[in-house]
Amino acid sequence: MRIVDIRERAVPLNSTLSNSSFDFSEMTTSVVAVITDCVRDGQPVVGYAFNSTGRYACGAQMRDRFIPRILRADPASLLDATGENLDPQKIVACMMQREKAGGHSERSIAIGTIEVALWDAVAKVERKPLHRVLAERFNGGKKIADRVFCYVGGGWYFPGQTIKDLQDEMRRHLDAGYTMVKMKVGGLPLSEDLRRLEAVLQVVGSGDHLAVDANCKFDRENAFAYAKALAPFKLRWFEEPCDPLDYGLMAELAQMYDSPLATGENLFSTQDVKNLVRFGGLRGDRDVIQVDPPQAYGIAQYARTLSQLDAMGWQRSGLFPHGGNQMSLHIAAGFGLGGAESYPGVFGDFGGFADDARLTEGKLNLPERPGIGFEGQAKLYRIMRELVA
Amino acid sequence: MRIVDIRERAVPLNSTLSNSSFDFSEMTTSVVAVITDCVRDGQPVVGYAFNSTGRYACGAQMRDRFIPRILRADPASLLDATGENLDPQKIVACMMQREKAGGHSERSIAIGTIEVALWDAVAKVERKPLHRVLAERFNGGKKIADRVFCYVGGGWYFPGQTIKDLQDEMRRHLDAGYTMVKMKVGGLPLSEDLRRLEAVLQVVGSGDHLAVDANCKFDRENAFAYAKALAPFKLRWFEEPCDPLDYGLMAELAQMYDSPLATGENLFSTQDVKNLVRFGGLRGDRDVIQVDPPQAYGIAQYARTLSQLDAMGWQRSGLFPHGGNQMSLHIAAGFGLGGAESYPGVFGDFGGFADDARLTEGKLNLPERPGIGFEGQAKLYRIMRELVA
Repeated sequence: MRIVDIRERAVPLNSTLSNSSFDFSEMTTSVVAVITDCVRDGQPVVGYAFNSTGRYACGAQMRDRFIPRILRADPASLLDATGENLDPQKIVACMMQREKAGGHSERSIAIGTIEVALWDAVAKVERKPLHRVLAERFNGGKKIADRVFCYVGGGWYFPGQTIKDLQDEMRRHLDAGYTMVKMKVGGLPLSEDLRRLEAVLQVVGSGDHLAVDANCKFDRENAFAYAKALAPFKLRWFEEPCDPLDYGLMAELAQMYDSPLATGENLFSTQDVKNLVRFGGLRGDRDVIQVDPPQAYGIAQYARTLSQLDAMGWQRSGLFPHGGNQMSLHIAAGFGLGGAESYPGVFGDFGGFADDARLTEGKLNLPERPGIGFEGQAKLYRIMRELVA
Repeated sequence: MRIVDIRERAVPLNSTLSNSSFDFSEMTTSVVAVITDCVRDGQPVVGYAFNSTGRYACGAQMRDRFIPRILRADPASLLDATGENLDPQKIVACMMQREKAGGHSERSIAIGTIEVALWDAVAKVERKPLHRVLAERFNGGKKIADRVFCYVGGGWYFPGQTIKDLQDEMRRHLDAGYTMVKMKVGGLPLSEDLRRLEAVLQVVGSGDHLAVDANCKFDRENAFAYAKALAPFKLRWFEEPCDPLDYGLMAELAQMYDSPLATGENLFSTQDVKNLVRFGGLRGDRDVIQVDPPQAYGIAQYARTLSQLDAMGWQRSGLFPHGGNQMSLHIAAGFGLGGAESYPGVFGDFGGFADDARLTEGKLNLPERPGIGFEGQAKLYRIMRELVA
């Protein structure tokens, strides 16, 4: 078995949304296809992935460095012990040749996206859904739940939005079967954000059904002001109050804000996560870490991050992979994590799950198609298929 | 005054060298030209820079995001208060639109390289060498020394190298006027590295003329072993013993290794440097921080990093900008830092200083050409000129 080609295309997200810190009008993502010569159901196995949301396409790094390194390697050196399937960890090591220490995000998104596409291929070769392969490889083969908790990353700012628009949005999410929602804060003055928050609480009932996300907006003073104002609502979590690398300020917030804090989607290495926990004062019994695996060297590196968090006493239920897509759903299921995020109607064809996904009581059923199962997302799969046409 | 165009080209370094961790056989750098409509000496002012050494070219990010954002902006919004010169800080803010928090290295190298080219243009418009402009803007206009301390980043590993080769190399550096050299460690077993070290010490005389660089190679056990073995030599510094983000291990090393430690070339943000000092246990009275400004958002951001280090009690003499080129020479001079690095005969046309640079008693004279003065490096300038041909 060998990799025949790896192809990438940058696709615009065409989103008009904003959070507190920036808008997505220029945002793109890299769609990747790993084409193999292994045949299943009469077709060569192709692994697909995209680079999740919020980071720009990175095809240049792939084409200049990572894809040529893979295609130049002896194909046998990229296979697992059986010799009959690809070994994503060996292929990452191959991509990491001649790369300098540190400077992760410059390459971790390109490498991670290719790596997740490799896992899609690996699972297709095994004729299993990816969550099952991950549970077998990384979670002791534990029987995993048939359904995974999923909340909505919503409540975005958009021009002309009224409080009623926001309440209507949240009602739609509850009507669709979700039991927890997240809304943006920090894009308006504190008093107006509180008015929005209280309006959403009227819809969702209580703070344990609601998280807020400041997208790293606040300096020390504003982070403290929001933390004090939010504390009485006992929210499910307060996400990214400050610069994602400001561990000192996170530690101060963890001292004064009792309810859960959340962060991690803007950390790209296992060492950064270790620093966050060690120096950021995060609390393993309640806080939430949200690394985005396709943006942080992929699934095998995510497994290493989890092993380290296990050793630091972290609960798996406090881990929610960032992304709001079919990749993070498999990862949440396979590793037995707290749950996944969903972005209904956001990020064009890239947010969301299989067209036949069913959501009941806030939980998504698990896809049973081989691999990640992008084949069950008609609009997204149409984009991916163009890479092999 | 306005920016007419910004152009980039990736150029291979064509280096056969290795350190303990990787070789440079695929390494490239981005050469950038910022073309303005401001005329000096009958020619439009063009600012030049390259993305230093050790990080791959990043022209895709420039072309996809940063250059279009600059060229789309109202030219007047990119000028300083006089309206007669560019304002690099405003132009960085323009480039940072629609960029997500964190994930620095994915953009800091592209933005930093453009920013340094902007400073080359700014200084040319003012008809001054860049070090003078920087001293005026960022160092209270202090009269700076006419010469800057400069050491050699040498002692690389190469195939077939003998101890005598290494000693001959170091003798050449001393004969050229240098008084301090650096050599690689970690590429051979400790006992062999010590043999190399002792041979170099025979040439340079004593540990205060010699630093060693492990290029982030060591895990905890090996870092401790090397620190213990190196301590008796009282070296000028021990550079990058471990992962550049492993602040916990750096703090342990700072506890047990009395002579100076050095690190920082693989940190790309002011917040990372703050974390290094705060959590990495570095000692402001002796340790060395080596941020590479063109790789870390450029000179104005470097000034912010320095302000923060000043506030944390750091000595300017403990700051050595990474890079070994004319850009870091100006920065070391303008900000009154400890000194600069030099890579004679390494990194092809990109290492080194003006062809008429004079080195005496370990110090380089300062260039007096307007701007950075790449025009005085014939081979490098030939590459840069191609961008405007």
